[in-house]
Amino acid sequence: MAAAVTNFDVHDIARCAKTFGLGGFYIITPLKSQIRLVESLIRHWVEGTGSVYNPTRKESLSLVRVSKTIEEAGQEISDLWQKKVKKVSTGASRYPKCISFRDLRELLEDRSTPFFLLFGTGWGLTEEVKEGSDYVLAPIEGRGYNHLSVRSAVAIILDRLLGDRF
Amino acid sequence: MAAAVTNFDVHDIARCAKTFGLGGFYIITPLKSQIRLVESLIRHWVEGTGSVYNPTRKESLSLVRVSKTIEEAGQEISDLWQKKVKKVSTGASRYPKCISFRDLRELLEDRSTPFFLLFGTGWGLTEEVKEGSDYVLAPIEGRGYNHLSVRSAVAIILDRLLGDRF
Repeated sequence: MAAAVTNFDVHDIARCAKTFGLGGFYIITPLKSQIRLVESLIRHWVEGTGSVYNPTRKESLSLVRVSKTIEEAGQEISDLWQKKVKKVSTGASRYPKCISFRDLRELLEDRSTPFFLLFGTGWGLTEEVKEGSDYVLAPIEGRGYNHLSVRSAVAIILDRLLGDRF
Repeated sequence: MAAAVTNFDVHDIARCAKTFGLGGFYIITPLKSQIRLVESLIRHWVEGTGSVYNPTRKESLSLVRVSKTIEEAGQEISDLWQKKVKKVSTGASRYPKCISFRDLRELLEDRSTPFFLLFGTGWGLTEEVKEGSDYVLAPIEGRGYNHLSVRSAVAIILDRLLGDRF
């Protein structure tokens, strides 16, 4: 199943990616119409009139890439780094052998290895994607309610992994 | 100035509020048209067909209230608690005498005092609102970029103040 990409997902997540110093942010969708939509959104803000109207959007949306599959995007990252990417799945439910936020935060300090954090919209990532990952991150535990939007989940997870500790 | 309320703001923030166990979430807007819009959105998901279609939205949107001013909302909270509410402003820039996340997290452990966290959309909270608050929270420090959406800022701030520490 392919969930629709929303403008809000692209903008909010790109701004988070920029805030926490990520190298890039891939939108993965097999749908040609969605790919064209995202590409035109990026063009508008990065090269078009939007880049003059709001330069901070240009900065964040410059990080956005589009890809048809996780494999294709992962390969691009591995090629860029000349090192195999480590894939990390995320999700709202517990998974056997999750990695904790603390442990992943430590792993990310190794700046010579590329990490690829995967977030699902709609019904989340498939079992197949989770099983094909190097790590599955522990869920954000709420007070008996775990239905955050993907935008909120990305914000919290990036802050826990890369934000200032206090 | 009054910024427009977006559906995404209401849904995303209500789901965060529910996740972190908040008592309520006020949308503050002086515009009658916006008030009616939010009220009809809440009715749809809490009482209308939406409540059957997606019960998790009912749970989160049950927390949403609408008010014309911060003062009016603050008074309602104080009346409910029979104790004067403490107002906490938030924002993207440093303010003299900010309270740190750590210190505010400790204050929130006092469950007998109501706290009212204020978030601004559009251009953020006015100086007047900040000066009229009991506390101004330190900003989220990014890597030289601080243009998060209000939705992402709420998610990160609630997690830092009320989420599990690890």
